[in-house]
Amino acid sequence: MSDPRLTPLAAALPADTPFVGIDTLERQRGAPFAARLGANENGFGPSPAAIDAMRGAAGDMWMYGDGESHALRHALGDRHGIDPAHIVVGEGIDGLLGTLVRLTVAPGDAVVTSLGAYPTFNYHVTGFGGLLHKVPYRGDHEDPGALLACARETGAKLIYLSNPDNPMGSWHPAARIEEMIAAVPPGCLLVLDEAYADCAPPGAIPRMDPGAGEVIRMRTFSKAYGLAGLRIGYAIGPRPLISAFDRVRNHFGVNRMAQGAAGAALADDAWLAQVLGRIESSRAEIARITAACGLTSLPSAANFVAVDCGRDGDHARRVLAELAARDVFVRMPGAAPLDRCIRISCGPEEDMARLAKALPGALEAASR
Amino acid sequence: MSDPRLTPLAAALPADTPFVGIDTLERQRGAPFAARLGANENGFGPSPAAIDAMRGAAGDMWMYGDGESHALRHALGDRHGIDPAHIVVGEGIDGLLGTLVRLTVAPGDAVVTSLGAYPTFNYHVTGFGGLLHKVPYRGDHEDPGALLACARETGAKLIYLSNPDNPMGSWHPAARIEEMIAAVPPGCLLVLDEAYADCAPPGAIPRMDPGAGEVIRMRTFSKAYGLAGLRIGYAIGPRPLISAFDRVRNHFGVNRMAQGAAGAALADDAWLAQVLGRIESSRAEIARITAACGLTSLPSAANFVAVDCGRDGDHARRVLAELAARDVFVRMPGAAPLDRCIRISCGPEEDMARLAKALPGALEAASR
Repeated sequence: MSDPRLTPLAAALPADTPFVGIDTLERQRGAPFAARLGANENGFGPSPAAIDAMRGAAGDMWMYGDGESHALRHALGDRHGIDPAHIVVGEGIDGLLGTLVRLTVAPGDAVVTSLGAYPTFNYHVTGFGGLLHKVPYRGDHEDPGALLACARETGAKLIYLSNPDNPMGSWHPAARIEEMIAAVPPGCLLVLDEAYADCAPPGAIPRMDPGAGEVIRMRTFSKAYGLAGLRIGYAIGPRPLISAFDRVRNHFGVNRMAQGAAGAALADDAWLAQVLGRIESSRAEIARITAACGLTSLPSAANFVAVDCGRDGDHARRVLAELAARDVFVRMPGAAPLDRCIRISCGPEEDMARLAKALPGALEAASR
Repeated sequence: MSDPRLTPLAAALPADTPFVGIDTLERQRGAPFAARLGANENGFGPSPAAIDAMRGAAGDMWMYGDGESHALRHALGDRHGIDPAHIVVGEGIDGLLGTLVRLTVAPGDAVVTSLGAYPTFNYHVTGFGGLLHKVPYRGDHEDPGALLACARETGAKLIYLSNPDNPMGSWHPAARIEEMIAAVPPGCLLVLDEAYADCAPPGAIPRMDPGAGEVIRMRTFSKAYGLAGLRIGYAIGPRPLISAFDRVRNHFGVNRMAQGAAGAALADDAWLAQVLGRIESSRAEIARITAACGLTSLPSAANFVAVDCGRDGDHARRVLAELAARDVFVRMPGAAPLDRCIRISCGPEEDMARLAKALPGALEAASR
């Protein structure tokens, strides 16, 4: 039964959520997973400096955090060589996407994304009454030309693109993205989700040009920086758009400790470099483990690898279920043809060993 | 300049924010405050068990938190003797109010509150296009009868009432609130902000009856529990309304560490009792300090005291500014006649001593 006081928009929304969380899945199955390789978390962990910052700040949590995340925004400005006025900090990219959609998408407005791309973005668009247009991937890459064409055709307010891509791990060179930004139609905005930018090879990430009015870029401390539990990310964009966040955002919504820990993590370049090395090794290890079972892994610029299970989505879903039955948590894309793949997060060696042990039996069971 | 891609609603919103944060104020004045008595934070601090929980969990922050806050919701259900299906956990009451308004207030819908009541609630209502109707306080209390009459007259979707009241510290007995709940008009919902409920005297807080469809109650770990920096609160209400939060909320927006620390704080009854004793002493101390300067403090059921400065809002604003010039941070109500008062948060003895030292000079300077 729906509450009779809901707005017509809220009353019409589906009850399903974009993701069933890992804790919920564990409760449903009645046991924890042994290998947590499904949420693209960073099992290599955050910088020890970030951990120290958290421990040191625990006694201060009676104070509200800085509503402007001033220190962190200035550190980020220094890091990216941009004015902090182009940066807004929020409760992870998920939170920032919600606020952005609220600011730009009125009921009935068109929004363009790729078929099989990030479900939480779609959730926010639907939640504010936007109409989603979904463009197919091309060769396991999001298709900038087709996304732009669809945006022109539909008069879209937003185009969503992740680079590197989630869930496929593919990426475009910076020049291709810069061409895309230059071609965004008037009145439209490119939402460039760069959650995995830190993991990407040189040449995949466009230079910072936050004065350009056609793009907003989303970054997070949840992936390479290993701080998913703290819920902190940021957006970089043109000043009029960034300042508009202040009209609707939950000003004191960013956890005080998260601001400090993110700053400490940002300053620890050595730890990040070490983690990125381990992510690269783990990508190679996932490729080896899956190749040993006759599967093809896709090239990845992220902290996960999409692995082609060689048949259709039903088969891949069986593989995923059989891995779960063997205590290995992975996820998979939600739409064909991407859903021939499962998506395996990078992780420590012991998790890779669990994957290697579980995969042959899971494949055999899934093929029966 | 406003971004041309904003929705008509977003484009029309004012750029001002409900509160200028303490960190922002400190940057503006170029110095920290010596006594932080303006945000109703709890300077007595959180339970040592909560601090231990934070420190112990710091290394786990690479994992996302539980999107359902299952453990905390069950602990809260046990505490209140209700089914956890009646509880949703969110990023503080501010975050929960935003989500509630989004679910229930469409552009043009009427909403009723009191003139001078919580600005952040008004901010959310305006942000979703609702039309605020403001009812005067009566004798420094919110006026249930007038709020209900206004709601009937305007066909309001929501009535906001805080008990104990912020900013005045006044309260109604539970029976009065229960009568009000019983009289909420059809199609309307009472938003009962109980941020300060833990500080209230016996008999001020209605019994839990979450099956009643006319009220949603908001609670927080920011005040008596001393965890404002973690951003965690919860709402208790009828199941169809609580489950509707899942249609729009940021499912993984609640910090993982906040869930654990809140659970630890909730379990430490001895610490809470000790803090409540110190809050009570501090209220008395604020009354003594202000009486010594010839001011009248209002009775309070919260962790702050409204102090009547004896003249108009301009005078109270001068007192506030002069206190700030003496490094003592307090706030004050935003509307007449409440704004004859300043609002002083309870705090440790050293902060009370700073207040006692600063107040005579501040009053003298304000009266010149």
